[in-house]
Amino acid sequence: MRTVVVTDPPRADAGDAERLGGFGVATVHEALGRVGYLGPAFRPAWPGARTGGTAVTVLCWPGDNLMIHVAVEQCRPGDVLVVATSSPSSDGLFGELFATALAHRGVRGVVLGCGVRDVAELREMGFPAWSTAVSAQGSVKATPGAVNVPVVLGGQTVAPGDVVVADDDGVMVVPRADVPRALTAAQARVDKEDATRAAFRRGELGLDRYGLREQLPALGIEHVPYEAWREQRG
Amino acid sequence: MRTVVVTDPPRADAGDAERLGGFGVATVHEALGRVGYLGPAFRPAWPGARTGGTAVTVLCWPGDNLMIHVAVEQCRPGDVLVVATSSPSSDGLFGELFATALAHRGVRGVVLGCGVRDVAELREMGFPAWSTAVSAQGSVKATPGAVNVPVVLGGQTVAPGDVVVADDDGVMVVPRADVPRALTAAQARVDKEDATRAAFRRGELGLDRYGLREQLPALGIEHVPYEAWREQRG
Amino acid sequence: MRTVVVTDPPRADAGDAERLGGFGVATVHEALGRVGYLGPAFRPAWPGARTGGTAVTVLCWPGDNLMIHVAVEQCRPGDVLVVATSSPSSDGLFGELFATALAHRGVRGVVLGCGVRDVAELREMGFPAWSTAVSAQGSVKATPGAVNVPVVLGGQTVAPGDVVVADDDGVMVVPRADVPRALTAAQARVDKEDATRAAFRRGELGLDRYGLREQLPALGIEHVPYEAWREQRG
Amino acid sequence: MRTVVVTDPPRADAGDAERLGGFGVATVHEALGRVGYLGPAFRPAWPGARTGGTAVTVLCWPGDNLMIHVAVEQCRPGDVLVVATSSPSSDGLFGELFATALAHRGVRGVVLGCGVRDVAELREMGFPAWSTAVSAQGSVKATPGAVNVPVVLGGQTVAPGDVVVADDDGVMVVPRADVPRALTAAQARVDKEDATRAAFRRGELGLDRYGLREQLPALGIEHVPYEAWREQRG
Amino acid sequence: MRTVVVTDPPRADAGDAERLGGFGVATVHEALGRVGYLGPAFRPAWPGARTGGTAVTVLCWPGDNLMIHVAVEQCRPGDVLVVATSSPSSDGLFGELFATALAHRGVRGVVLGCGVRDVAELREMGFPAWSTAVSAQGSVKATPGAVNVPVVLGGQTVAPGDVVVADDDGVMVVPRADVPRALTAAQARVDKEDATRAAFRRGELGLDRYGLREQLPALGIEHVPYEAWREQRG
Amino acid sequence: MRTVVVTDPPRADAGDAERLGGFGVATVHEALGRVGYLGPAFRPAWPGARTGGTAVTVLCWPGDNLMIHVAVEQCRPGDVLVVATSSPSSDGLFGELFATALAHRGVRGVVLGCGVRDVAELREMGFPAWSTAVSAQGSVKATPGAVNVPVVLGGQTVAPGDVVVADDDGVMVVPRADVPRALTAAQARVDKEDATRAAFRRGELGLDRYGLREQLPALGIEHVPYEAWREQRG
Repeated sequence: MRTVVVTDPPRADAGDAERLGGFGVATVHEALGRVGYLGPAFRPAWPGARTGGTAVTVLCWPGDNLMIHVAVEQCRPGDVLVVATSSPSSDGLFGELFATALAHRGVRGVVLGCGVRDVAELREMGFPAWSTAVSAQGSVKATPGAVNVPVVLGGQTVAPGDVVVADDDGVMVVPRADVPRALTAAQARVDKEDATRAAFRRGELGLDRYGLREQLPALGIEHVPYEAWREQRG
Repeated sequence: MRTVVVTDPPRADAGDAERLGGFGVATVHEALGRVGYLGPAFRPAWPGARTGGTAVTVLCWPGDNLMIHVAVEQCRPGDVLVVATSSPSSDGLFGELFATALAHRGVRGVVLGCGVRDVAELREMGFPAWSTAVSAQGSVKATPGAVNVPVVLGGQTVAPGDVVVADDDGVMVVPRADVPRALTAAQARVDKEDATRAAFRRGELGLDRYGLREQLPALGIEHVPYEAWREQRG
Repeated sequence: MRTVVVTDPPRADAGDAERLGGFGVATVHEALGRVGYLGPAFRPAWPGARTGGTAVTVLCWPGDNLMIHVAVEQCRPGDVLVVATSSPSSDGLFGELFATALAHRGVRGVVLGCGVRDVAELREMGFPAWSTAVSAQGSVKATPGAVNVPVVLGGQTVAPGDVVVADDDGVMVVPRADVPRALTAAQARVDKEDATRAAFRRGELGLDRYGLREQLPALGIEHVPYEAWREQRG
Repeated sequence: MRTVVVTDPPRADAGDAERLGGFGVATVHEALGRVGYLGPAFRPAWPGARTGGTAVTVLCWPGDNLMIHVAVEQCRPGDVLVVATSSPSSDGLFGELFATALAHRGVRGVVLGCGVRDVAELREMGFPAWSTAVSAQGSVKATPGAVNVPVVLGGQTVAPGDVVVADDDGVMVVPRADVPRALTAAQARVDKEDATRAAFRRGELGLDRYGLREQLPALGIEHVPYEAWREQRG
Repeated sequence: MRTVVVTDPPRADAGDAERLGGFGVATVHEALGRVGYLGPAFRPAWPGARTGGTAVTVLCWPGDNLMIHVAVEQCRPGDVLVVATSSPSSDGLFGELFATALAHRGVRGVVLGCGVRDVAELREMGFPAWSTAVSAQGSVKATPGAVNVPVVLGGQTVAPGDVVVADDDGVMVVPRADVPRALTAAQARVDKEDATRAAFRRGELGLDRYGLREQLPALGIEHVPYEAWREQRG
Repeated sequence: MRTVVVTDPPRADAGDAERLGGFGVATVHEALGRVGYLGPAFRPAWPGARTGGTAVTVLCWPGDNLMIHVAVEQCRPGDVLVVATSSPSSDGLFGELFATALAHRGVRGVVLGCGVRDVAELREMGFPAWSTAVSAQGSVKATPGAVNVPVVLGGQTVAPGDVVVADDDGVMVVPRADVPRALTAAQARVDKEDATRAAFRRGELGLDRYGLREQLPALGIEHVPYEAWREQRG
């Protein structure tokens, strides 16, 4: 691995990132065509956390948080720190002191493909964190890695400057170039969902609203009364 | 798999289901002889959720929620929607819009052997949901399945009309025919536990209350003072 | 396995245990040189739980809580019950009735290398519990085991009388002989972290504070502006 | 759980079971409409094992193989022993001595939703075994369970007398009533696959053979030369 | 997700890919600086399989192998098919008929971030396959995806035309641009390892050969005779 | 963690260790009272491996094999190297070059609570290895640890000089002090199993041989003919 710290990568607009954060993960994920979600392994350290920011990426050796120290200096207001490890690890590479340093710099949260610790303190601070584990296991500062190179987390590539959106449903990435499209599509989806919600509250069915009912026969789906079905099964 | 929607299966009484929900999972599970629990993989989407209702069952293809749309129409007040997938999947087949449609129909909750999404919205709505994952991953509506056939979740068979009980401890199923026995046995257990709780608060020991102490010698359990034990170990 | 109940093992001081609980898992773990943590599989049954106490250890057969009944009698004020199973199990060996009996005896919490149940009731009681699963699955009382012998949980040996510290970050063990050192080192760490926190709030960087910046060249870490890096990658 | 040993359940024909075993899991699973597979957690104890037989089912308490001893007596030539546990367990409830006893009775193999041991000896004996774990962990004989009641393994219900088919791809169940249909459909599938295999060896594509090519445009799938695609991505 | 089939992407040289396959995964991974490994979840369907080829990538919907049918046509001699799914799935999307079709086209193997089936037949054919599961679970052909776009497997991005190396240790990717460097570095590593192996056979220690011994004091590593150590522990 | 290399710990007799290896894991585990097994996560790198030796223990930082280099020098003929990591890791800390160095010193195998690599080469060499993962992921040599201190693997404590027994069923530890008892008890168990095997081959049932049949009524186990059972179920 090249041990490099890339400085000043172009970022998506911090305001756009915040707006995407407001839409939330499920909406933006759907709006973009069901892409970018980091999967169910990433969970918030405390319920109700929600954020949208621009990625500063870090690649650490397992059990070693040296590169997070290196990365802090690269963070700006509106960023979200995104930490990957070079092989699977659950160690708690990030805790309350890092959160304090990042909060000072205006960073909006952290996403870790490993463990987080000081969960009670993060909750009190209101510093948003998502991770694949909660772990108090401490780390050394011995092995080099990289900052602001593309990293892979949960089957998705996160490039520096991409937008990271996260809430109770998990984490997703929006590539920087897709941000304008994401904003438009997310707003359109919200509008459509508002209409659908109103319809559902009136008792309309998705079966009818989405035109699914007429497709059922071609899919071989038949409705059978319970008694008839029991007889057929013998 | 037969692609069928069974209509109007007989259900357990909705009031009985509610009463079982009030007893809670651990109590009913014990009362029935330690059967019916779906195991520790099923977790509530938000803490404090609790329900009891009659099962409407759905079998979906992984990554495809077409059959949930088909199932909504089959739901009545007092039901709980129970969703299985034909092979392992963590995708979020169910979210807030479905919950809106179900709440309109008086459905009391959902149990998913896959993912749920819109967790923050479900918590705000107070719509109870249990699942094996939280995932924003969206789904298509392309592949047929079944509604109201028996499904297997967590090593238990759930038939349509069975009672589903769920709380912070997870989810269990009570076969429709066992509901009267479950009600009686759960009440008896609650009464017994009340007495035991009072005894424990007075300092009585389970060892004595359950008649275990006199069985210990036959089981080869001996009490040894610490110093003697250390010496024996060398 | 020898089926023995060791009585009256020497314990660490209950007040010292409480003080270590106050420091919290991450702090004590670091203070002792990053040892003793039971790993990310142990989670609190309800958020915000925190404790420090002296271990009464139990070794159970999977699916069998007989030995917990035997162990209750061995518990004193200031203890924490620590339950291991002889092979992997997620069954809920411990619930609200046990908690009632233990609370009566002044026990400060429970740590289970298996499942816990009655989570809602434990939260209401404020009885702290950590476990590797939440499960309503009930148990029998048929097979002997041991009380107050050393047990292994999460890759750590817990001996009776050791101090157990637990909070939202998980669980750790402090061997009885290490308690004085742990107290001193934890206080020193807290003092150091207070100073670091204040520095971070002023904008100082860990990179400078920990003397890491001057080590970067020897580690081969170079800073490269984004545009230069893009060109190098081609 | 009712502690019962059901004797002499009707079985599918042992010769039919053997024929289904000859077809193999993937073929029979597809032939029946993609149902009945116990999932990827069930692995053979040694590669190349293959069997088809009629199920004798056992429900054991975790860590306890009493009911396997009870079940041996219920086995006949052509049977396959199918063992579930009442909660998750990896313990090695079955080994070479049981295999010796079963082989004497003409039993064709064993399927365990827990652990198997004596793997080297089973391989030497040529006794087929599938399980969710290999584990030397021994068991007690203390807690009752059931024999020849329906059990659930890997999301499938196995009833006594059903056919179990197993090979390097895992394990599946064919309900007794479906055996005639399974035999016919499996043979039809083999014939069709023979023709397909011959076609593929000549270079024909599934895209054409299955009529998929003409569906691609409606699915929105377009072919784009690499250079054009690169330009579109920017 | 864009539903596109990218045709004729530039590939690394098929001969170079074969040479890298000959070096093996561990060697090439080390030679490149410990990058590119897909992790321990990818296992060979049969022991002893080994390959090196150029990637044709496929992105499938879970439970749906339509896009593998589309991808076959894009394969050339020297390729390795690389299949990802858009969300986690263990279904067996690939089996012996696909292998027959690919073998006809000179394809050297398959890597699947999901399940494989027909394991016995693949072993007999000698067709190399790596996957994250073995599963007979069948699939539909209903949902579009992509061919020859970059996919992420095991935390690594695989682009079409990259070299895939796989053996008993798992799977790795070598980006097309890195192939020349990989060949040189792998050969250098083999030469170095040959010398090291010879030295180790003579009894030389890595401690001396790698210059580690003199670093031990600075790392705080001290040698203590057993008896002294026991006394210190008390 | 104390960074120490303990030299020349007393070992169990190498010949005794070999004899225990000959008995095998399941036999010795049972003979000692069902203790000492490291659990199903430890698998042999190649089938048929079998060994018994005296433990040289190593504690490594995740992703770092420095201490294995340090440990080689401490190994003698008859030893088995036992490697733990200070937090969960699947990285391949051990491969063919280490095996070459150890084989030169008469070491009988390796047990790793992390990954192994060069599986094909180890199989060719016939060097026995057990691990919790196969992984080509390489390691650094930067962080200190310990040699010949007690380590915990799979819920068992392994002290230097203890006997490690391993075969296709996994790995177990026999504390040095228990070796004489283990030898006697294992031989007794083999004799007993020989007699049982002969009886089972004659058709005797465990139900009778172990005196279980007469216990069934007290356990509430009743035999019910299939037809009667069906009627009772309704």
